[in-house]
Amino acid sequence: MKVSGKSYRTLWVGADAWSVEIIDQTRLPLEFQVLRLTKLAEVAHAIRSMQLRGAPLIGVAAAYGICLALREDPSDSALAAARETLLATRPTAVNLRWALEQMETVLRPLAPGARLDAAYRTAGAMADTDVAICERIGFHGEPLLHAAYERRGRTQPVQVLTHCNAGWLATIDWGTALAPVYRAHDAGLPVHVWVDETRPRNQGYLTAWELAQHGVPHTVIVDNAGGLLMQQGQVDLCLVGTDRTTRSGNVANKIGTYLKALAAKDCGVPFFAAVPSPSLDWSVRDPGEIPIEERDAREVHAYPDMPVRNPAFDVTPARLVTGLITERGVCAASEQGLLTLFPERA
Amino acid sequence: MKVSGKSYRTLWVGADAWSVEIIDQTRLPLEFQVLRLTKLAEVAHAIRSMQLRGAPLIGVAAAYGICLALREDPSDSALAAARETLLATRPTAVNLRWALEQMETVLRPLAPGARLDAAYRTAGAMADTDVAICERIGFHGEPLLHAAYERRGRTQPVQVLTHCNAGWLATIDWGTALAPVYRAHDAGLPVHVWVDETRPRNQGYLTAWELAQHGVPHTVIVDNAGGLLMQQGQVDLCLVGTDRTTRSGNVANKIGTYLKALAAKDCGVPFFAAVPSPSLDWSVRDPGEIPIEERDAREVHAYPDMPVRNPAFDVTPARLVTGLITERGVCAASEQGLLTLFPERA
Repeated sequence: MKVSGKSYRTLWVGADAWSVEIIDQTRLPLEFQVLRLTKLAEVAHAIRSMQLRGAPLIGVAAAYGICLALREDPSDSALAAARETLLATRPTAVNLRWALEQMETVLRPLAPGARLDAAYRTAGAMADTDVAICERIGFHGEPLLHAAYERRGRTQPVQVLTHCNAGWLATIDWGTALAPVYRAHDAGLPVHVWVDETRPRNQGYLTAWELAQHGVPHTVIVDNAGGLLMQQGQVDLCLVGTDRTTRSGNVANKIGTYLKALAAKDCGVPFFAAVPSPSLDWSVRDPGEIPIEERDAREVHAYPDMPVRNPAFDVTPARLVTGLITERGVCAASEQGLLTLFPERA
Repeated sequence: MKVSGKSYRTLWVGADAWSVEIIDQTRLPLEFQVLRLTKLAEVAHAIRSMQLRGAPLIGVAAAYGICLALREDPSDSALAAARETLLATRPTAVNLRWALEQMETVLRPLAPGARLDAAYRTAGAMADTDVAICERIGFHGEPLLHAAYERRGRTQPVQVLTHCNAGWLATIDWGTALAPVYRAHDAGLPVHVWVDETRPRNQGYLTAWELAQHGVPHTVIVDNAGGLLMQQGQVDLCLVGTDRTTRSGNVANKIGTYLKALAAKDCGVPFFAAVPSPSLDWSVRDPGEIPIEERDAREVHAYPDMPVRNPAFDVTPARLVTGLITERGVCAASEQGLLTLFPERA
C-alpha cells in the first residue's frame, strides 16, 4: 500500500539481497522509519517488542528469521535452535508455528549447504502468498460492504467497526479485515471506519494511520465506545482479524474483540472475522486450548507499583460470529462451514 | 475515608467557613492536592474539567456552587443564572439537576437576605445525606459479596470487577459501588477487585488509588480485558455505579459499562449497579431519552488531526442488570422492583 504516495510492503529483502527491512511499527503513527534486521536475535526482538505485529506478518517475519539464522550456521542444530527461539516470541498467533513448520518441511531434508537459498525462496514465496491471500479476502469480503450499503438504502456511507489493526500493517500487504474496506473504497463505495483505539498498545492508531494514508474516512474511538455506537445504529458491520481461529470457528483475536462481538449480537450487527488459512488451527476445537499471551505490565502504564494484569487476546465463541472471510470465500463460523471451503481438512 | 492515615471527604467547607475545598482529582493518583474554590465559575470549571467527578459528588458540588454565587449576589436573577451555569456543566448525571432543584425549592421562597445561610445549611445537609446513603448502600450490598464467597466454597477471595470510579472519590464519602467492598473488607472478608482502566479519562486509576489507600487488594486491567476474565471464571460479581438510572431500571453509566454487562450476562456473572436515590430519574423510562455527553476529542490523545468521537456514557438495558443496590435495599432492575422500595413514586 502507499505511504505518502510511495508503494510499500511491511517487510522486504534489502538492496544487499539478504538483510530484512521492516517498517518499525512502534514508531508509527508519529514517525515512519525503516528498520534493517541482520540477525535472528533482531527478528525475535522485533516480534517480541512489536516493531512488527499482526499474525500474518509475524509468520513471514519468522520465516526470514530462519534465513538470517542459516546465514550464520546452516546446521541441523542451528535450524532447530532458530525455530525454538522464534516460536517462543509470541504464543497466540498460530501463523508463527505454521510458518516455521513450512520452513522446516522444506529445509530439513536439504544438505546444510543448500539450505540458505531455499530458505530465502520459501520465505519470499510465503510473503507473496500472504499478499495473494489478503487480496482474495478483500475480493470475497467486499460484497458484504456493498450489501450493507444497500440495506441502508444508499443514504449514507457504510459504517464499519474494527478492533486492533488487521490492515496491511498486520500482513505483508492489503491486510485481512481491512482488505474488503480498501477494495470497496477503491470501487467508489462510500465507507467510514470506526477504529477502536485498542489498549494497551493502541494498534488502532496504526489502523487510523493506514486508513488516512489511503484516504479512507475514519474516526478513532476508545474501546469502551463501540457498544454505544452499535446501540445507536451507527455501525453496519464489524470486521476484525484473527490470531488463531479454531476448527470449530472460535476466533482468537486482540483482547476486547469478544466484547464487541457480544454488542454486535445484542444489537443485530453482523460480525465477521477475516481469516487467512494460515491462521486456522485445525488441531484445536476448544477455545480453552488456545494459549493467551500475558504481556508486560508496563504496557498498561500508570503510576509505579500499580498492580496490573495484561492478557493480550481473548477468544470470541463461534456462536457470536456471523461468518468467516477466507481466501476461498465466506463461510459460517463452524467446523461444517470451514469444511465446505477446506474439504481437504475433513 | 483515609488518605495516608488521615480522614478526608472529597469536599468540605474551608476553615474560613465559606470557601469550598476539594481534592483535585485531575492530579490523582500521582499527587494529592487540595483545591480551594471561592467562586461559582470555579465550581463550574471544577465540574467541567473533572477536578471533581462522580454523579453524587457533582450534585453536592453544584449545591455549594449556588452558595458561592449567592455570596456575591443573592437576588432571584443571580440564583437563576447560577442554576443555569451549573446545569450546563455536564448533561448526563441526573444528580446535578436533582441537587439544583433541591436548592431552588428551599431558596426561592426566601428573601434574598435570608438565602445564604439557608444555602450553606442545605448544601451541608445534602453532603451528610450523601454519606448516609452511601453507607446504607454498603450495608445492603455487603451480603452480595459474602454470598459470592460462599458460592466459591470460601476457597479464594471474592473477585469483584468494577468500571470507572464509583468509590468514595465519586461521592462525599464511602462511594456507591465500592461501599459494599469497603464494608466487606473491613468485616474481614477476603476481597480482590479487578479495576477497569476506563479510557479515556482513566478513572480506574482513581479506583486503584483509593483501594490502595484502604488496603484492598486490586489489579488494574485495560477495558478490553474484563470479558476474558469473566470467560475464565475469574470474576464473581460486577459492581458499577450510575450517573442516571431510569424508572424502568436502565443504567446510564461510564462508557463501556454496557460491554461489561453483556459479558457478565454471557458468562453468568451477577451484575449489580449501586444506585443512590438521587441518581434515579423517575421521569424517564426509555434509555434513548438520556442525553449522552460528548466530551473533548483531546481526551483521546494521539497524533494531531486524528479524527475522534468521544461519547462519555452508555446505557445498560435493565435486562442485563441482576439488581440495583439502593440505600433502601436491593431490588430488581425494573419499575416494579424500584417501586417496591420507593412506593411513594408509584
